Amino acid sequence: MPSRPPFSDIVSSLPATVPFVPPEESERRTGQKIQLRLGANESSFGMSPRAAEAMRHAVEEAHLYGDAHCHELRTELARHHGVETEHIVFGSGIDELLGLICRVFLNPGDPITTSLGGYPTFNYHVKGFGGQLHQVPYDGDRNDLKGLADKARQTGSRILYLANPDNPTGTFYTAEELKCFRRQLPEGCLLLLDEAYVEFAPEEDVMPFDPADPQIIRTRTFSKAHGMAGARIAYAITHPETVDAVNKIRNHFGINRIAQAGALASLRDPGFIRSVAEKVAQGREEYASLARELGFRPIPSSTNFVAIDVGSAKRAQAIMDALWEEGVFVRVPGVEPLNRCIRVGVGTPEERRQFAEAFREAARRTGIDG
Amino acid sequence: MPSRPPFSDIVSSLPATVPFVPPEESERRTGQKIQLRLGANESSFGMSPRAAEAMRHAVEEAHLYGDAHCHELRTELARHHGVETEHIVFGSGIDELLGLICRVFLNPGDPITTSLGGYPTFNYHVKGFGGQLHQVPYDGDRNDLKGLADKARQTGSRILYLANPDNPTGTFYTAEELKCFRRQLPEGCLLLLDEAYVEFAPEEDVMPFDPADPQIIRTRTFSKAHGMAGARIAYAITHPETVDAVNKIRNHFGINRIAQAGALASLRDPGFIRSVAEKVAQGREEYASLARELGFRPIPSSTNFVAIDVGSAKRAQAIMDALWEEGVFVRVPGVEPLNRCIRVGVGTPEERRQFAEAFREAARRTGIDG
Repeated sequence: MPSRPPFSDIVSSLPATVPFVPPEESERRTGQKIQLRLGANESSFGMSPRAAEAMRHAVEEAHLYGDAHCHELRTELARHHGVETEHIVFGSGIDELLGLICRVFLNPGDPITTSLGGYPTFNYHVKGFGGQLHQVPYDGDRNDLKGLADKARQTGSRILYLANPDNPTGTFYTAEELKCFRRQLPEGCLLLLDEAYVEFAPEEDVMPFDPADPQIIRTRTFSKAHGMAGARIAYAITHPETVDAVNKIRNHFGINRIAQAGALASLRDPGFIRSVAEKVAQGREEYASLARELGFRPIPSSTNFVAIDVGSAKRAQAIMDALWEEGVFVRVPGVEPLNRCIRVGVGTPEERRQFAEAFREAARRTGIDG
Repeated sequence: MPSRPPFSDIVSSLPATVPFVPPEESERRTGQKIQLRLGANESSFGMSPRAAEAMRHAVEEAHLYGDAHCHELRTELARHHGVETEHIVFGSGIDELLGLICRVFLNPGDPITTSLGGYPTFNYHVKGFGGQLHQVPYDGDRNDLKGLADKARQTGSRILYLANPDNPTGTFYTAEELKCFRRQLPEGCLLLLDEAYVEFAPEEDVMPFDPADPQIIRTRTFSKAHGMAGARIAYAITHPETVDAVNKIRNHFGINRIAQAGALASLRDPGFIRSVAEKVAQGREEYASLARELGFRPIPSSTNFVAIDVGSAKRAQAIMDALWEEGVFVRVPGVEPLNRCIRVGVGTPEERRQFAEAFREAARRTGIDG
């Protein structure tokens, strides 16, 4: 029997794990077909018709590699955000960028700070590059900014990860709060500010860019408000030195041509994004009312989903299972105490009507012994 | 001035480099607009109309993440290749897979064997994960199989990289030759067999899969014969243990939904791929005749490009520059002695006519003092 080389020390030490089981895999495992897909924070409002048109058109040129520099999109983004093009680096989704950022800054064993119950894919990449995770519990369903800064200082963390608006809670810190937090960030620690959902937060409360600050890297995506999750394109804005470092290791031709075309067209249709954000805000209100009607507590959200506190992890699990039996896909965060919440994406009005019906029934059924 | 964390030891040690300058960037740097794009080994014959239709259709669902398991495509590929689904792992292009394979098997400092002048993106990833490259010169414009096996043994290499058919030479080893080579592979060394161009080689000469052999991993792509370079989808076939290891670290939701749909449709249109391969074979013959007519030597190719030996590195550079001035994009391999060749993609009949005209002129002009 021939023998392969051993796996690397880090890979050998890793468990077999995935950050998320894909909903299609859950369908295959259970035999249940999803009727209402509200568990992956995708946009029920789709993409800009201009983006869709650009992407269909780009299919005709998909035998050609995409521009490795994403020059046209980069130029438009720089204008859009009021930064220079050299402050921007692209990835095929924020997930890829999180891995690249870990790789750029981590030696095996290096400490990292994040919230306990924060985005699993970040943790996955930290471990995948041999980093050591330090996790700070949420404080009243919000990221504990002081706790995070203290932990980063105590552990000498190289990176502090903060999703803002947050996933899975949906909570948000304003520019003023973040500026104060920035001052508490220890020297030599990078603030990795994941802003995947930022278009759903009040525009006036979003912290302005200061790309000259080498201690902050901010990730943005076309997967959420732009409705292009399946197209895989995202970017980070940071100091050019860090962009250069990512460029030493990234997969240069990895950003597909169709996504580049779609992202550019979507960026040029800001009215569409505004209208999606408005529709989502309205849907959040509906979900909040629904939750209160059923005696549950909606966590205030600045994203395209709402986490509904149903009182206990047991009840949350039971409700999620009952919903799944009706073909309704939602998620429950994996970690205490957030696992007493149902996280549900803001659907279209018709999807919300269907969800409300199924949720009322699931609440009723699970309430008997819940 | 605030300070970021230092970059990781590996990233700090890397030079600022890219495996390839994208043609769009060359256009921007020189102001020359490309009229004839034959330098990136893309398919001038585009993709299957069925694949294009499937991709346009998939744009409608691109607000949803693609299936992280690529289940439908995986099932179809397994049937196509006569392997089990657990032998297959996907990447957004072979480039991404090469990085993942390095990461799975390499500790910093580990030795790797490849050909001197072989695929630069593999070398880029080896260095990016701290590996130590050992390079074996080509032998008569072919990969030196004995030399590679000997070097791998001498250095204790963990991976031996072989592109077959080869890039940039286009040369090919048959199943019989590779089986003999397999027996020379030292224990504990992985053969990474990059088969990006395999659909252009004689089908009967391609080595059958033996996915129970843990010492071989073979990469395949939809970028070349399938004409989907800009869509970014590829896969590797290997032992399930290695698939599991890649699954511990890969970007699970990284394969875009549109590419998955296109790849599936393309796979179900084998007649299209056969017809592309036939057209390419005809084009290679034309290029070979053209080369001989001009007193050059075409290297026999089993790919969708031909490397034409024009006698010297100086002449090759001069011809490439002269072609560029006419808007014709071809490449010259970066390393001696292959850098005496012009590498040109097989275009459509009309593109070949245009290339022949420009090439004759460039040969004439550079011949005066060449």
